[in-house]
Amino acid sequence: MLGYYLEQVRKKKPVIHTITNYVTANDVANMLLASGAKPVMANAPEEAEEITAGCDGLCLNMGTPNRVVFEAMKLAGEKAASLGHPIVLDPVGIGASSFRRNAWKDFSEAFQVSAVRGNVSEIRRLLENRSGERGVDASPGDSLQGDITVQADFARKAAKKLQAIVAISGEVDLISDGERCCCVENGRGEMSSVTGTGCQLSGLCAAFLAAVPFEQRYEAMVAAVAAMGVCGEIGWERMGEHPGNASFRNAMIDAMFCLDAEVLETMGKVKIL
Amino acid sequence: MLGYYLEQVRKKKPVIHTITNYVTANDVANMLLASGAKPVMANAPEEAEEITAGCDGLCLNMGTPNRVVFEAMKLAGEKAASLGHPIVLDPVGIGASSFRRNAWKDFSEAFQVSAVRGNVSEIRRLLENRSGERGVDASPGDSLQGDITVQADFARKAAKKLQAIVAISGEVDLISDGERCCCVENGRGEMSSVTGTGCQLSGLCAAFLAAVPFEQRYEAMVAAVAAMGVCGEIGWERMGEHPGNASFRNAMIDAMFCLDAEVLETMGKVKIL
Amino acid sequence: MLGYYLEQVRKKKPVIHTITNYVTANDVANMLLASGAKPVMANAPEEAEEITAGCDGLCLNMGTPNRVVFEAMKLAGEKAASLGHPIVLDPVGIGASSFRRNAWKDFSEAFQVSAVRGNVSEIRRLLENRSGERGVDASPGDSLQGDITVQADFARKAAKKLQAIVAISGEVDLISDGERCCCVENGRGEMSSVTGTGCQLSGLCAAFLAAVPFEQRYEAMVAAVAAMGVCGEIGWERMGEHPGNASFRNAMIDAMFCLDAEVLETMGKVKIL
Repeated sequence: MLGYYLEQVRKKKPVIHTITNYVTANDVANMLLASGAKPVMANAPEEAEEITAGCDGLCLNMGTPNRVVFEAMKLAGEKAASLGHPIVLDPVGIGASSFRRNAWKDFSEAFQVSAVRGNVSEIRRLLENRSGERGVDASPGDSLQGDITVQADFARKAAKKLQAIVAISGEVDLISDGERCCCVENGRGEMSSVTGTGCQLSGLCAAFLAAVPFEQRYEAMVAAVAAMGVCGEIGWERMGEHPGNASFRNAMIDAMFCLDAEVLETMGKVKIL
Repeated sequence: MLGYYLEQVRKKKPVIHTITNYVTANDVANMLLASGAKPVMANAPEEAEEITAGCDGLCLNMGTPNRVVFEAMKLAGEKAASLGHPIVLDPVGIGASSFRRNAWKDFSEAFQVSAVRGNVSEIRRLLENRSGERGVDASPGDSLQGDITVQADFARKAAKKLQAIVAISGEVDLISDGERCCCVENGRGEMSSVTGTGCQLSGLCAAFLAAVPFEQRYEAMVAAVAAMGVCGEIGWERMGEHPGNASFRNAMIDAMFCLDAEVLETMGKVKIL
Repeated sequence: MLGYYLEQVRKKKPVIHTITNYVTANDVANMLLASGAKPVMANAPEEAEEITAGCDGLCLNMGTPNRVVFEAMKLAGEKAASLGHPIVLDPVGIGASSFRRNAWKDFSEAFQVSAVRGNVSEIRRLLENRSGERGVDASPGDSLQGDITVQADFARKAAKKLQAIVAISGEVDLISDGERCCCVENGRGEMSSVTGTGCQLSGLCAAFLAAVPFEQRYEAMVAAVAAMGVCGEIGWERMGEHPGNASFRNAMIDAMFCLDAEVLETMGKVKIL
């Protein structure tokens, strides 16, 4: 069924309002285009509501924020929620900054996100609303210890508390809507050497969610996570004699551009937990 | 004669003040460097006039704007106009945002742009000053129906009303200065899968205009449009077994880096209308 | 000994708070990741101190500044200085903007930078605090005339006056701490056709300085300059039939990703002056 959701993105071509950091915005835009979606980046409060009203989904990425951008995110979030658009939050570096945690507190009182995509530390910090990280990577101490059923338990609890679909990126990715839970065993460790692979995935999540009816959002989220992982695998295979994170970045986006629904179906490794 | 204008850019190495969106700024900078021009990006009101005074041309790109950046654009535009520098406007997404339309109204009362480069919907919205689009792509309903002479008529009227050279990007590109009009039949449809090819072209237009005397600006604009299209064709030809929009992005910039005046002359398909 | 410093970056994986321009931020992030360091980009005053406190080093890049970003730089600089973190300043385009020179005056009264990396015009403007350039390239008139000992004399004086390690990028790079001085004869002229190679080097300088004890900072700075130059040479060698600045950009970052300490040792051309 994974391939079906990719086909929906290609068919519906959802327009995704992406308020994202300036470090990886270009890659997010090209990854969205590669998937068949249409990115619109706009982060001024003056136009946030109007822009998002003309889109099909919203992605809020907390990297390189500032006061004005957070204001735009809030306005866009309220508008998108009122219109029933899917809203994906990527809480980049939320453990490293009380400024970001305060913005999250503000957002969570103003509107309900549909989904959250982050690493385990970011998800923990969202739940606990406390500091923790240095930088934007997951802390070793946060790693999901124990067997996979313990991890699934954490994902379910996080989704319930956030009232959102949660995708936790890591060696194995976990997705839960609070009831259902599965893991995706795709991707390559080298993806963490490319800036913005997480941002790209969050953009894809918004595109996949925007391409399906409300009741298929969980499955669409699983498909987005699997698609990104499969692109990582295909991209890395294409590295020649001199691999590197710049070439790998391009190869992953190229892989999405060419990704066939059947290939995604075959390569996707999803296990229900 | 197309090759001549590329040679002028290579010889004059114009410094282009580019106030542009953060999504595609890197690609615009590298495309300008590939052409022989020198990009300077600076979008603070505090330095906009001083920076632009030290440059040879100005490119104003309306993607990802905010209040402060619009203020810088206005100051830079007024200064550049007073110095006789060519000013190219790229009205990204102007149909999707009244914030952008109001800024345009403000700019058009404060200074005269030399040229406008956009898709047909963006050019229509500039003329009509009304909303229309979802996102940053042209609306199907705006497509220039009718045979090419009808389209040329639209381009001429747009140029007259805007008192500027107009380049309308589409399957076939149209360029007019209000009197003269031509179409350029270069480029590849896949260019729309790469974020920022329009932004790159707008940057090139500023570089080509800044490299020639006032009376050659129309021809220089035609040459810039043809050069971008030819780079799209060359770049796509170089796609290997696994094409993709990330590789294509790089291949187009590389093609400009190596573009020979004679090749542009031979490959450029310009028809006078 | 050059290889040793690269190994330290790979081993320590320093987290580098990078407040940088939006044009080249993605490349700086990927170059830092390629070296083994971890970039964190954050430029809001509200979080600047908290973010930098969780990092190991700070890079302040003056490209595309605005009032709010300069405020964040000042707060981050004061905090990083109080914690003994290395602070690298890249005075992009400081000769083209009194706004940037005033910010530098403000910073230099508030905290002491550890190192400055720029082209000869930028270093001269820092010392003289006066205008000079059009754009962001070095002015021909500023080129360091005379034999290499005269150039070394300039570098030593600059370092003494700035009380910082200085790296002056040019055909030959000069590094001095006020007493010691050396030149690095690596790199390719084509690197100036890729936007942001200077920004990438400044990021690397911060990473290398953050990976060593205080007393090894000069040697680490030399190693960073040599590593960037060597990556330029390796990257250019890998250009195929159709070289270009976009491919070259990727090839340099890839070269850093694969750079072996022994290769750096062998290829690095450092002369003590």
